Amino acid sequence: MTAIQKYSTKERDQDRARILQILLMNKAVASGILAKEPIAETQSAEQDIAEIVTLVGRLPAPDLADVLEALPTEERLALWSLITEERRGSVLVEASETVWDDLIADMSDKALLNALRPLDIDDQIYLAQYLPRDLVGRLLATMPQNERTQVRQILHYDKHSVGAIMDFEVITVRPDVTLAVVQRYLRIRGKVPQNTDKLFVTSRDKTLLGELDLTAILLHSPQTPVFKVMDDNPTCFAPEDHDEKAARTFERDDLISAAVIDSAGKLMGRLTVDEIVDVVYEETDSDLRRMGGLSAEEDVFAPVSKAVRTRWAWLAINLCTAFVASRVIGLFEHTISQLVALASLMPIVAGIGGNTGNQTITMIVRALALQHIQAGNISFLMMRELGVALINGLVWGGVMGTITWLLYNDAAMGGVMTLAMVLNLLVAALMGVVIPMTMTRLGKDPAVGSSVMITAITDTGGFFIFLGLATLFLL
Amino acid sequence: MTAIQKYSTKERDQDRARILQILLMNKAVASGILAKEPIAETQSAEQDIAEIVTLVGRLPAPDLADVLEALPTEERLALWSLITEERRGSVLVEASETVWDDLIADMSDKALLNALRPLDIDDQIYLAQYLPRDLVGRLLATMPQNERTQVRQILHYDKHSVGAIMDFEVITVRPDVTLAVVQRYLRIRGKVPQNTDKLFVTSRDKTLLGELDLTAILLHSPQTPVFKVMDDNPTCFAPEDHDEKAARTFERDDLISAAVIDSAGKLMGRLTVDEIVDVVYEETDSDLRRMGGLSAEEDVFAPVSKAVRTRWAWLAINLCTAFVASRVIGLFEHTISQLVALASLMPIVAGIGGNTGNQTITMIVRALALQHIQAGNISFLMMRELGVALINGLVWGGVMGTITWLLYNDAAMGGVMTLAMVLNLLVAALMGVVIPMTMTRLGKDPAVGSSVMITAITDTGGFFIFLGLATLFLL
Repeated sequence: MTAIQKYSTKERDQDRARILQILLMNKAVASGILAKEPIAETQSAEQDIAEIVTLVGRLPAPDLADVLEALPTEERLALWSLITEERRGSVLVEASETVWDDLIADMSDKALLNALRPLDIDDQIYLAQYLPRDLVGRLLATMPQNERTQVRQILHYDKHSVGAIMDFEVITVRPDVTLAVVQRYLRIRGKVPQNTDKLFVTSRDKTLLGELDLTAILLHSPQTPVFKVMDDNPTCFAPEDHDEKAARTFERDDLISAAVIDSAGKLMGRLTVDEIVDVVYEETDSDLRRMGGLSAEEDVFAPVSKAVRTRWAWLAINLCTAFVASRVIGLFEHTISQLVALASLMPIVAGIGGNTGNQTITMIVRALALQHIQAGNISFLMMRELGVALINGLVWGGVMGTITWLLYNDAAMGGVMTLAMVLNLLVAALMGVVIPMTMTRLGKDPAVGSSVMITAITDTGGFFIFLGLATLFLL
Repeated sequence: MTAIQKYSTKERDQDRARILQILLMNKAVASGILAKEPIAETQSAEQDIAEIVTLVGRLPAPDLADVLEALPTEERLALWSLITEERRGSVLVEASETVWDDLIADMSDKALLNALRPLDIDDQIYLAQYLPRDLVGRLLATMPQNERTQVRQILHYDKHSVGAIMDFEVITVRPDVTLAVVQRYLRIRGKVPQNTDKLFVTSRDKTLLGELDLTAILLHSPQTPVFKVMDDNPTCFAPEDHDEKAARTFERDDLISAAVIDSAGKLMGRLTVDEIVDVVYEETDSDLRRMGGLSAEEDVFAPVSKAVRTRWAWLAINLCTAFVASRVIGLFEHTISQLVALASLMPIVAGIGGNTGNQTITMIVRALALQHIQAGNISFLMMRELGVALINGLVWGGVMGTITWLLYNDAAMGGVMTLAMVLNLLVAALMGVVIPMTMTRLGKDPAVGSSVMITAITDTGGFFIFLGLATLFLL
């Protein structure tokens, strides 16, 4: 009996870190690999390359995918060139979309098809969704007829639907056979697809009748017929269901796998929890990015040119909103020229509004994602946020108003400060609820750019309210 | 044979929405339930309550937990009062921390202990971590001696460690028995813990030797000894491991369950994917919240008083930073009084810096969470972000400078605008990398308040750079 974990998680962590270290610290190694010729003089560079080759041979595909994701383009390609053709497919499947462009661009069509061939059909389909059209055609041509039909079917589902991540490899059994027959059938089959925790019980026309847990086969007497121990009310999905919604259901019901059925109740495939975990991670990532107006395609190691391209649109929007805010201030230049202290005070009003607005919008966007917001509780939410804003406005506006009064020895200016802060916080709270709700009602993703929008409103609003009140009361 | 899904996901969605609707639209119902006396006149309110009772009886615990999370406090308590005592424990386990306070506060200690008793030990431990100390003592007193020891052991692990979410219910087998013996043993046992996809192979002293997949039992001949078909190199965790890191490993290796072993290699328990999915969701939520300075404890339906309390600290910090920025402007009041246009232009410089800084910091925080950032690639990242900032600064600063020139017919002012934007974008990029890296090096969570910090720096910096340059070149 060997000791447990010959190649432990910890060692894998170390090996991944070591590859990164060699490639990043020793630029010559990466460029040496890319140049495809040995770096003659430096003995150590050759040793480094040899060490990387050993590590690459030892590390499983998911680890290699992780390392690729953590490298800038040049080093990424250097490492990619050291991964053998037969392993590249499995590494691609594990890597995130952000690195595919780099890796696929580096391969000839033939090499790419060779890399894809050893994969099972689900993985091929998964990658096919991101391949250039003509390559998909050539990939399809290499497949048997029945697989080709399945792939075509999948390819027309939306990228974020259950259909796009479902798995065709299912084991089905008939309801009237005994568990002994099922077990004999499994032994003859010799293997089961990954993450199989249950078999699907279907009628002859593929209609799903129930699910048979593997544990049920193990726990009950071999003479028991399947229909007696199957779960005849399992959770199922339709291929059109949204993947994030399916993830919530997996979480709620602690599922490992679930059937995907068409509208007639026929079994199409299954969803497994490993895909769901990926969906949850992607959801997280994209929510964070979208709120700030970052593109989902930009990875942290993308070259400068790509980063400039993916970010320019949001920057332009931001500049436009900032310009509008600036023009609002411009309207009050006469006021400011008479009372220059207003120029120093106005960013406080705008800033505090932006902060509160962003807090509110973050909560609402999350609550919408969790499906916690229904028609009935919107007015409650609105009143709650306005209540919080009113109290905070009175307290902190009061503090700031007093400081203004003491600083400029001008009680009226302090009063204007307090009033402006209260009003801008109310605007922030109101828009923090209204913006995401409206976007949802319009069928848009409430996370996209909501942070940019609320900041624009609280800035412009803050300047207008403060300078407007000052013009009314202080001149 | 019955049709599939007698109580479908869709129906459950509808039932959850219906409870929310009744409770939120018809305030009288919620207050009627809370008042514990029937609302005499309104026949329909009584019918509403009866409908809720039916729905509550039908919905599984996770769905009830979801509904509770989507209700304001008053309605939440009304619904809670309609959930029977024996189901309350299982609902609590499924509900998120944010609602526990409300629900637990509403129950007597005795009722709480009664609700916890039907739960299995893992769930009891999970809840015990959040119960008041004295109640934990009383809960422990109701347990058998061996369970008490286990609970005590768990309770001292960190809330975010593997130990805190691990599961004691494991099935172990010896390596030298045959699969037929294992299967007989399972039949005698009669059931297996939820999410069991494998058994653990241990020696007599509990040292983990390997893992036996349930599928291996089904696929191999009954005469095969366990050690021949077990996985002798499985992924294991230590109880001290961080839960988010374990989640990454589950994702990478597509695990359903994994062993937790102590430093001597002895089996302590197991981790299951359902806990991991919860960890991933929590990680998401808390990252989003922390970046904006929102407390993890605030749920969207918390009463105003609680929201004010959880938010005041960040508001105060924000006011302080805004005040500092305001004082920086104050230093240049003389400059502004001479050239009042500066007051309208300065927020553009500050705003664009805040936007860029937040984009950079979001990317870096995510890359840190994904462990993509190593000592070797920091300088690359820094150069990349500075490069992006320089290009964006020259392009958009150029655009803005030109507009300024045309608007105020002052070429020098346009030049100052362009230069200030370039410089502030460089500051934003630099600090967007430096802030999260420094926090990580200091052992702090890089997500906490990083957005507030970067905005403070780009505001203050933007005002200082722009007004400073204006004082130098325009007066």
